[in-house]
Amino acid sequence: MNNSIVFDADKISSLEKKYRIALINSISGFKSASLLGTVNKQGNTNLAIFNSVVHIGANPPLLGFILRPTTVPRHTYQNIIATDYYTINHIHEEMVDKAHQTGAKYDSLESEFDQCGFTSQYYEAFKAPFVKESRVKLGMHLKEVLPVKSNGTYLVVGEIVHILIDDESYLDDTGAISLNKAGTVAISGLDSYYSPQFLKKLPIPRV
Amino acid sequence: MNNSIVFDADKISSLEKKYRIALINSISGFKSASLLGTVNKQGNTNLAIFNSVVHIGANPPLLGFILRPTTVPRHTYQNIIATDYYTINHIHEEMVDKAHQTGAKYDSLESEFDQCGFTSQYYEAFKAPFVKESRVKLGMHLKEVLPVKSNGTYLVVGEIVHILIDDESYLDDTGAISLNKAGTVAISGLDSYYSPQFLKKLPIPRV
Repeated sequence: MNNSIVFDADKISSLEKKYRIALINSISGFKSASLLGTVNKQGNTNLAIFNSVVHIGANPPLLGFILRPTTVPRHTYQNIIATDYYTINHIHEEMVDKAHQTGAKYDSLESEFDQCGFTSQYYEAFKAPFVKESRVKLGMHLKEVLPVKSNGTYLVVGEIVHILIDDESYLDDTGAISLNKAGTVAISGLDSYYSPQFLKKLPIPRV
Repeated sequence: MNNSIVFDADKISSLEKKYRIALINSISGFKSASLLGTVNKQGNTNLAIFNSVVHIGANPPLLGFILRPTTVPRHTYQNIIATDYYTINHIHEEMVDKAHQTGAKYDSLESEFDQCGFTSQYYEAFKAPFVKESRVKLGMHLKEVLPVKSNGTYLVVGEIVHILIDDESYLDDTGAISLNKAGTVAISGLDSYYSPQFLKKLPIPRV
């Protein structure tokens, strides 16, 4: 094909740093966009955007995310290790600008809830703050932190202990949440936001 | 709110199995949809749909995915362990039905390439088969397999050693791939496919 382009290992490693970051962050396809809410033992809240939340299992209900402790979300990591609890909150179309802004390097005494215009919300005795503006919120209990030796990141695995949904009409009869009814966005790379349009739902594949 | 609904841990664990699977698989937001191509030492190819590919790092360029060896994709696992190589291929709108069908339980002598109507394609000396019909294809070299103790799954970590893109116009000046130009789809849960519409690209957030 005339317009095709190939990047082999040598070419990837010699790419200019920002170009490589943009390419590799976008090459894996669409990603979830979530706000992770935490609190430290002194009661200071933290909120950070993540695009690496991944489904690990339904029974027990487990989600994971990838964390690089040496970059911005270090408060998230410290707070999760200190308290064992965190929240995962969906990002909706009208929240995108404010949610993106949580990626700025605020210091530990500034809460991104206040700095970026979100409202912390507590549910029963659950320690970590939810994002009131989010229409789908998950309360998570830390289960495991797995070190990825290849680059010093971690897979953080947690169990879903609370699911808070603003409107039960987001759920269909099968139990699936309709992400477009909820207005949840997807992200590509580190900075491009998408509003997915429903194409089709397919039956369980059989031979 | 009148229409809100809450699932706490007890309620989640007592949900009917299929309902719980649908709820938990869809609650984490949009996911990438990829076809993983592998081959065993006898040369039999395998192709399986995955929705758990996650970005781990840009330098070295690493992606992970979650694998449950006891269910359908076990051939994928055996082949990766045996050969150290696999491919990740984007799924585009016109490929959705055939890609979904790769989730059926074909036996080990039947290749999903043939059974589902895809064409295997090889690049230079790279061992694993790419999907010719995919417009964005990644050649992966296995780096680590991390066991998730909480449920017996694995995080499989690989390094991107080849990136094959059908049309260089999918890349913007910054190095980011435009997933909607490529026509790549997103998935929700196990069965719902979406075509994301671009909303906006935001600058690096600063305090």
